[in-house]
Amino acid sequence: MTPLYSRPLDLEQGRIELSHGAGGRAMAQLVAELFAAEFDNEFLAQGDDGARLPRCDGRLVMATDAHVVTPLFFPGGDIGCLAVHGTINDVAVMGAEPLYLAASFVLEEGLPLRELAAIVRSMGTAARAAGVTIVTGDTKVVERGKADGVFITTTGVGMLRDGIEVGGANARAGDAVLLSGPLGDHGIAILAARHQLGFESSVQSDTAALHGLVANLLRAAPATRVLRDPTRGGAAATLNEIARQSRVGIVLDEAAIAVRTEVAAACELLGLDPLDLANEGRLIVICPAQQAQAALAALRAHPLGREAALIGEVIADERCFVQLRTRLGGRRLIDWLAAEALPRIC
Amino acid sequence: MTPLYSRPLDLEQGRIELSHGAGGRAMAQLVAELFAAEFDNEFLAQGDDGARLPRCDGRLVMATDAHVVTPLFFPGGDIGCLAVHGTINDVAVMGAEPLYLAASFVLEEGLPLRELAAIVRSMGTAARAAGVTIVTGDTKVVERGKADGVFITTTGVGMLRDGIEVGGANARAGDAVLLSGPLGDHGIAILAARHQLGFESSVQSDTAALHGLVANLLRAAPATRVLRDPTRGGAAATLNEIARQSRVGIVLDEAAIAVRTEVAAACELLGLDPLDLANEGRLIVICPAQQAQAALAALRAHPLGREAALIGEVIADERCFVQLRTRLGGRRLIDWLAAEALPRIC
Repeated sequence: MTPLYSRPLDLEQGRIELSHGAGGRAMAQLVAELFAAEFDNEFLAQGDDGARLPRCDGRLVMATDAHVVTPLFFPGGDIGCLAVHGTINDVAVMGAEPLYLAASFVLEEGLPLRELAAIVRSMGTAARAAGVTIVTGDTKVVERGKADGVFITTTGVGMLRDGIEVGGANARAGDAVLLSGPLGDHGIAILAARHQLGFESSVQSDTAALHGLVANLLRAAPATRVLRDPTRGGAAATLNEIARQSRVGIVLDEAAIAVRTEVAAACELLGLDPLDLANEGRLIVICPAQQAQAALAALRAHPLGREAALIGEVIADERCFVQLRTRLGGRRLIDWLAAEALPRIC
Repeated sequence: MTPLYSRPLDLEQGRIELSHGAGGRAMAQLVAELFAAEFDNEFLAQGDDGARLPRCDGRLVMATDAHVVTPLFFPGGDIGCLAVHGTINDVAVMGAEPLYLAASFVLEEGLPLRELAAIVRSMGTAARAAGVTIVTGDTKVVERGKADGVFITTTGVGMLRDGIEVGGANARAGDAVLLSGPLGDHGIAILAARHQLGFESSVQSDTAALHGLVANLLRAAPATRVLRDPTRGGAAATLNEIARQSRVGIVLDEAAIAVRTEVAAACELLGLDPLDLANEGRLIVICPAQQAQAALAALRAHPLGREAALIGEVIADERCFVQLRTRLGGRRLIDWLAAEALPRIC
């Protein structure tokens, strides 16, 4: 067999060209020397248009997310690990065990191969750490100025054990609301990376794969009703969504909601509310009150849930309001913003 | 429950704004009034971060494809139906029955909602016609000039029946090579839509879902070894890929390969080879010679395979060459282009 290409990809000085998406030798080389080399597994090695996976006897869960975050690299992460974590989390908050990921790339002509290689390595590392396999993929290239570096869509498939029934419509009056850690780190880390803070910040994105935390939780509190990761739109949008899906109200205790000092300071300066900021490694849990302490203990026993807290309760409310009991003893409505001040946060 | 938005989306005059991707009310409205309304099914109606699917007892197949075709609308189709067909076909050529699709959208700020609505309707129509359900999705919006209208990634999951073993590495010397119809229609339709032909053309894209054709074929020729749809890179790239995966040679009969008169004329004028042009509704089949006639009859019995033909055979060849026996009796090597003359064909 004659070799397909005369020299290896130049991952230091090279750049993405239109030919890397054209279905010919250049694309085959990019796939072989970068994607397949980094994601290395038996399914990708099949080299077909899709992946043949093992038997799967159980209920499936499927989730997909496009990632368009800017900048591509930010404190605590990059678009690569974010794309892996984001979709793992979407599968995990359905109560399922994430098994397989598909990854689809839209690359802009001129993207330095060095940057793409760093992103792909970050994806590989994140997937291996999570025990999830990137089994199939696709690469397209568009002309310079027709995209913004790289967009990555990941799609996840997972298995749902019998007996687990979580969903946004399951919250009931009397349930407890828990949060796994401080709010707003990802949002502020992205703003810092965009130099929009106006000051130095050491806040790192909280991007992380939550399925281990979820597994811990579901063992301790199998009657858990709702799981959600408060990404775009923040906890405010997520809780309003749940309230509407379940046709209930939610009351939060401001004093119980952790926000890092630096995040709180940045929010005050910029007129942002930590409840509106995106998170990429936080979990909101709604469970029956009698399992709340077991759930809290399970969350805190996991490295990603050490700062978990009981932050509120579900109440009967036909208006589906989300309210905050403030530190001063008042109540304010947590609205669901029409838009967000921060586009392309994930 | 108070209504989330004061007036319905203006699908005639409205445009995509950054808020439509920000996780707030505007996004919820876009999802509810456009995507969920058009794709309407019980899984999307769950309204969660992913889809809970029924039990699935068998081998899974997973495939993903980003679609960046330009222009968005072309003779015979648009990016919407193409995104549905493309991924259905990637699942089908693994020998599997496509069941579920996930759809992820990257939208450019300013995209007319009228165009998006037409694309989404086309996806819904294509999915319903194929009996495949779009169970989950995601929408991101990027600033004007940071994308090109809309990119759509679809990911498909299908089930593989026991006994079906098709794959690019399975071709053996002596096998027959079949093709389901004429080559190059999609490529020329896109060139025409880009006004790059220099003359009027009535060629329509061949975009179509091939799983029905594949099912017909596999019933008649269950020992089929390789299935592939020759998209980007055309039949030349696809056959070279198979030859390398299977470590065999392939010899084609030029006279047996159908090319529409208009496509042949356009190719001659533009210096293109129909074997390099993209197809979106054609199937290449490699099966044992003794099942070739049964396979051919099964293909021809399906509306998408009426012009199917036996176009060549697999031979032993350590160099993995793909050769063409020309009409004049000579032989020429069918090379695998480094790049393609036509970026963003799908």
